[in-house]
Amino acid sequence: MTAAKRDVLAPHQDDLASAMSYALSGGKALRAFLVLESARMNRVGSGAALAPALAIECIHAYSLIHDDLPCMDDDDLRRGQPTVHRKWNEHTAVLAGDALQTLAFWLLAQPEGPDPTTQVALVRSLARAAGHHGMVGGQMMDISAETRKTPYSLEQIKQVQHGKTGALIRWAATSGAVLAQADTAAWQALDRYGACLGLAFQIWDDVLDIEGDAQAMGKAVGKDADRGKATFVSHLGLAGAKEYAADLVKQACSALDIYQEQGDCLREAARFVISRVS
Amino acid sequence: MTAAKRDVLAPHQDDLASAMSYALSGGKALRAFLVLESARMNRVGSGAALAPALAIECIHAYSLIHDDLPCMDDDDLRRGQPTVHRKWNEHTAVLAGDALQTLAFWLLAQPEGPDPTTQVALVRSLARAAGHHGMVGGQMMDISAETRKTPYSLEQIKQVQHGKTGALIRWAATSGAVLAQADTAAWQALDRYGACLGLAFQIWDDVLDIEGDAQAMGKAVGKDADRGKATFVSHLGLAGAKEYAADLVKQACSALDIYQEQGDCLREAARFVISRVS
Repeated sequence: MTAAKRDVLAPHQDDLASAMSYALSGGKALRAFLVLESARMNRVGSGAALAPALAIECIHAYSLIHDDLPCMDDDDLRRGQPTVHRKWNEHTAVLAGDALQTLAFWLLAQPEGPDPTTQVALVRSLARAAGHHGMVGGQMMDISAETRKTPYSLEQIKQVQHGKTGALIRWAATSGAVLAQADTAAWQALDRYGACLGLAFQIWDDVLDIEGDAQAMGKAVGKDADRGKATFVSHLGLAGAKEYAADLVKQACSALDIYQEQGDCLREAARFVISRVS
Repeated sequence: MTAAKRDVLAPHQDDLASAMSYALSGGKALRAFLVLESARMNRVGSGAALAPALAIECIHAYSLIHDDLPCMDDDDLRRGQPTVHRKWNEHTAVLAGDALQTLAFWLLAQPEGPDPTTQVALVRSLARAAGHHGMVGGQMMDISAETRKTPYSLEQIKQVQHGKTGALIRWAATSGAVLAQADTAAWQALDRYGACLGLAFQIWDDVLDIEGDAQAMGKAVGKDADRGKATFVSHLGLAGAKEYAADLVKQACSALDIYQEQGDCLREAARFVISRVS
């Protein structure tokens, strides 16, 4: 790019790029970790797993920016820092989220990526996981909870989680098997692991919303209870929710039996999910 | 899907799907037309062109939903109907736009699509055209115009258009050459056509913002002038803008010389762009 052209673009393009980069930083990068570990377990080099790992973090970051908007969860803090619409403004938040979603698909379609059939499979499955049948559908159901007369049943809360957080975590967990073009059993083991982990993760989020410390969490706590929103904790009680999460982590660990000791790192991650304080 | 599961999802999922479908309907479908015609000119069957044609309309529809939001252009009417956030609400508009973008990439990655290398090329180029270096970048620059002390120069307005409307139109125009894996000359001819057409289209939009009839347009007019925003018309005058648009249409038509009479339909479309009243 010539200096003259760069001058034409700046500074608004810079704001957009800064907001995108800001939203990508400071998280646990659990989903990227799942992709890299799933790849390693399926003997795929980390080079080939890097684009999917970045792509899933882009989707996750975009979803957080949009979830935090005033017309959605209206949050001021995320990971201990001002949310994008608070640090910049609402239109920058909408557009940075939009561009991060686009960036995810761009990353999956690079010429130096894995073979094209695998790339297409990753694009298709990520779009399925992130779209109206997956994450966005779950988010729509979740936000609609606040205007309902009757709180969601336990089954409906599971359905929200299945879309809102479960779909991306399952995609991340299974991505190594897709990259390796592994057999169905390998894919199914990781999918089962991802499904249990995702559910345990959400239950633990609900636990932290009650027991957590706002400072350690880097975001507001007690919001769900304040709004009278049905959660795993409101249905099962604190002890019941913790027990359910622990049982899911056990199921997640044994789902990886076919990977033997190669699955130890993911088993450790599952145990971490229900011990974390943020 | 079982009846029980459908019951769990409804009615919020229905709202999301309805908003997505609503946003897709009622437009000129210029971009889909460009894809289908570009495919025909490159001897690609309309079956193979259908997914890219739908995909580009999904991206376009998503961008309109988000552009119309209160934090962006704050428009109440689009194509003579209430905008999505007016008919439903803001969070439905954000999420329907998000899901339409995802749907576009899902459509390009179907197993029954063209060969995977072509699919990956379409995903990559669409992501490039739609993202922070393309449409979203242009939109960011456009919305930032309102808070600037000095209005944009003509060069900067061209830069906004290049991203905001030009990138998708060029993608649509060139998609047939990509589908056919045609030679560089074929792609370049269509790219040149798309670049001229896109610019002429935007100039004519600026003309209609002054001369147009709100009822025929199905949206508010005179908004740019009211806001003191620099446009092609404010820089060139009405007559100068029309002359420039007409010259661009001539260039668009002659860019298709190598297609001979096979390019007549696209030439006609270019002439339509600067004769339309809405």
